[in-house]
Amino acid sequence: MRSFIEEIQAIVGPAGLITSPNEVAPYATDWRRRYLGKPAAVVRPASTAEVARVVRACADSRTAIVPQGGNTGLCGAATPDASGTQIILNLSRMNRIREVDARNNTMTAEAGCVLATLHKAAEERGRLFPLSLAAEGSCEIGGNLSTNAGGTAVLRYGNARELVLGLEVVLASGEVWEGLRGLRKDNTGYDLKQLFIGAEGTLGVITAAVLKLFPLPKSRATAVVALQSPEKALALLDRALEGCGERLTGFELFSDFCLALVLRHFRDTAAPFPRRFPHYVLMELSDTQSGGGVRALAESVLEAALEEKSILDAAVAHSETQARALWKLREFISEAQAQEGPNIKHDVSIPISRIADFISATDQELARAHAGVRMVTFGHVGDGNLHYNVSINRLVHDSVARFGGSISAEHGLGQLKRAEIQRYKSALELELMRKLKRALDPHGIMNPGKVL
Amino acid sequence: MRSFIEEIQAIVGPAGLITSPNEVAPYATDWRRRYLGKPAAVVRPASTAEVARVVRACADSRTAIVPQGGNTGLCGAATPDASGTQIILNLSRMNRIREVDARNNTMTAEAGCVLATLHKAAEERGRLFPLSLAAEGSCEIGGNLSTNAGGTAVLRYGNARELVLGLEVVLASGEVWEGLRGLRKDNTGYDLKQLFIGAEGTLGVITAAVLKLFPLPKSRATAVVALQSPEKALALLDRALEGCGERLTGFELFSDFCLALVLRHFRDTAAPFPRRFPHYVLMELSDTQSGGGVRALAESVLEAALEEKSILDAAVAHSETQARALWKLREFISEAQAQEGPNIKHDVSIPISRIADFISATDQELARAHAGVRMVTFGHVGDGNLHYNVSINRLVHDSVARFGGSISAEHGLGQLKRAEIQRYKSALELELMRKLKRALDPHGIMNPGKVL
Repeated sequence: MRSFIEEIQAIVGPAGLITSPNEVAPYATDWRRRYLGKPAAVVRPASTAEVARVVRACADSRTAIVPQGGNTGLCGAATPDASGTQIILNLSRMNRIREVDARNNTMTAEAGCVLATLHKAAEERGRLFPLSLAAEGSCEIGGNLSTNAGGTAVLRYGNARELVLGLEVVLASGEVWEGLRGLRKDNTGYDLKQLFIGAEGTLGVITAAVLKLFPLPKSRATAVVALQSPEKALALLDRALEGCGERLTGFELFSDFCLALVLRHFRDTAAPFPRRFPHYVLMELSDTQSGGGVRALAESVLEAALEEKSILDAAVAHSETQARALWKLREFISEAQAQEGPNIKHDVSIPISRIADFISATDQELARAHAGVRMVTFGHVGDGNLHYNVSINRLVHDSVARFGGSISAEHGLGQLKRAEIQRYKSALELELMRKLKRALDPHGIMNPGKVL
Repeated sequence: MRSFIEEIQAIVGPAGLITSPNEVAPYATDWRRRYLGKPAAVVRPASTAEVARVVRACADSRTAIVPQGGNTGLCGAATPDASGTQIILNLSRMNRIREVDARNNTMTAEAGCVLATLHKAAEERGRLFPLSLAAEGSCEIGGNLSTNAGGTAVLRYGNARELVLGLEVVLASGEVWEGLRGLRKDNTGYDLKQLFIGAEGTLGVITAAVLKLFPLPKSRATAVVALQSPEKALALLDRALEGCGERLTGFELFSDFCLALVLRHFRDTAAPFPRRFPHYVLMELSDTQSGGGVRALAESVLEAALEEKSILDAAVAHSETQARALWKLREFISEAQAQEGPNIKHDVSIPISRIADFISATDQELARAHAGVRMVTFGHVGDGNLHYNVSINRLVHDSVARFGGSISAEHGLGQLKRAEIQRYKSALELELMRKLKRALDPHGIMNPGKVL
């Protein structure tokens, strides 16, 4: 190992290499501290050329590489094993925005750019980069793309995958695939970038990307709605999509139990209505046109729903401050739950049309199997993505499979669900994935032990 | 061959097999009649199970398979070679819409469904399936996905790839990959469907797909704009995107020479303005809200542009009839050109910000190299996609490469550009594509001689 580390140091210099246990520690565990790894070193290259040379050195010596960005993942994909033989390849020093091309509506950014920094750079040019998630102040775009991140704007703008036009990737051989194209249309063979997006670093290292930008919304309306059941929420989603089209940018469901947790653990929050209701939806519209049109539209959709009694109450925020207060009720749920005590998170997706039936069937099964279990169900319902947080894995995942859903909607597989997925994917599909893995990483050095 | 054909007939029955030369003929050539193949047979299976058994028989006997849908492609990808040993696997009999799930905004359709039939089925449930192209009355969704079709709605809804949530694919082994998921979010490993979309049948046979549906627009505004140059068109695109956001669903540029061709060859067309201008843009807005809002918005954007003299004239259609007449000016260009005489089509894409410079640089080079050459430039400018039709290939493609563009924006590679692409893709990228091909089709029976 000695001479290998020296070889790496010759490539990245002293600023790019961390080996002392104290300094290595924060990189060696994941954000939720569920996995504790023991890397041979943390390598922090400053350029694509350095990444390529590091990977080539690893390929020559068959050293396993664990790519890492802001290290905010929830499935342990960026944490090495405990063997002391793997290196962490941290991309955070590669944080240059190489270009913002406002007229082409694209931005070329290196893997280590923090997501919030990209938001700001786009806004300065009158554009929106819509990928948005709780960790945006510290997660990095390379990790966002490697995990095909979701977040709160998927309903309108799609997952991370749909926001990428081109990639630069260091392959397992150390060769650099230069695919940084800023084209909306390119039908010249296999769309290679799709392979690396969402592969959690198992097929190569994303070093830079060409990202799509959008017109900046100039008006926004946020509303909270009280409802009897998830079924009513789906009916409202239908109505809102039909009436508002692409103005509908957020549609989040949470139960009264979620609200209770937030109100208990966060003092500066308040219930949205004088009385409590079984379920709530947080709905957001935005528009590139300024003015009150979007507000009036929200009101008319909700009034119609109130009239036919498909919702129980509704309130549209009158100010940005009010809107932010409403969003807190949704955003604080995870943290309130953590403060409440031990819990198990599920990040599942279900065809939207089957969500209500899924929730009711699974709640019943859980209640039967485990008296006293408490369900903290909330999620990006507009995308079919639920965070169904309870203390039982197998039962929930089996129910997800029965409803034609996915056991990882946006968090990925990493180490956490690597064994579990074997139960739900066909042998054929797993073999297809293995064939691709072997084709692109024949020595198995790219993030081994993750995904597959 | 005899016993192989008998084996196939035992699978698909007499209704599924065509061998007489007269009946085979229409399947054996492409729509533009540039390629003439000689298949051993045309096989028309009626179900996924039949496709699987046919492919397995082909794999056993190492018989090459040329998948074919509506046979409307422009690059010869669906035409066999002249060896008499390849079979055409025509999917047209698999034309069942398996499900329309309006609440999930998805539709599950078999490969042989004609695109226009899918439009109608979606509309009947109050939804839009937005993929739209000239051949929609006869092209089939399996072919659309295998070629990642583009068309006139890409600006707003993306290419065919972005409209797919799940696929069912018969692999080169004859195994069926069941990936018909209707989920907006699914991060459980490699996104395998991406490999088969746009692969032109070289990695497997798409037999069915889960497609995304959208709210049906309830109002529309169509305008024609006169401009001095492509540069002014890009400035207008900027302004329109900023002001209209996702309401902007069409933005097509064509030169006065294109208009002259259409007016000459189609009697029932009329020039849009009393006088002629160097360039025109056809702009379309649509909205899920009914009423005149979208029309007023188009007028305000165009008035502002007229006031600052960045456009020369503009007219908004007052009726659906007027709107259709304007669209004809754009849609008839290809056919007018065909009637005018021999021509060479280019289907290229350029970063939107560089389109104006590309046109002016390439026009100049062409004029220098070939006196008297006439440029018929038009295209989906909102996507960066130009159909730059002249009599010289190499010069145009080299210029495309210099401007960071693609030599096939939406038509694919097929046989037509299979050699040409070797000049523009890196050896590394071609080798990556070959590795994937070998991993998924080790015997090379899937549409050999196309793409790679």
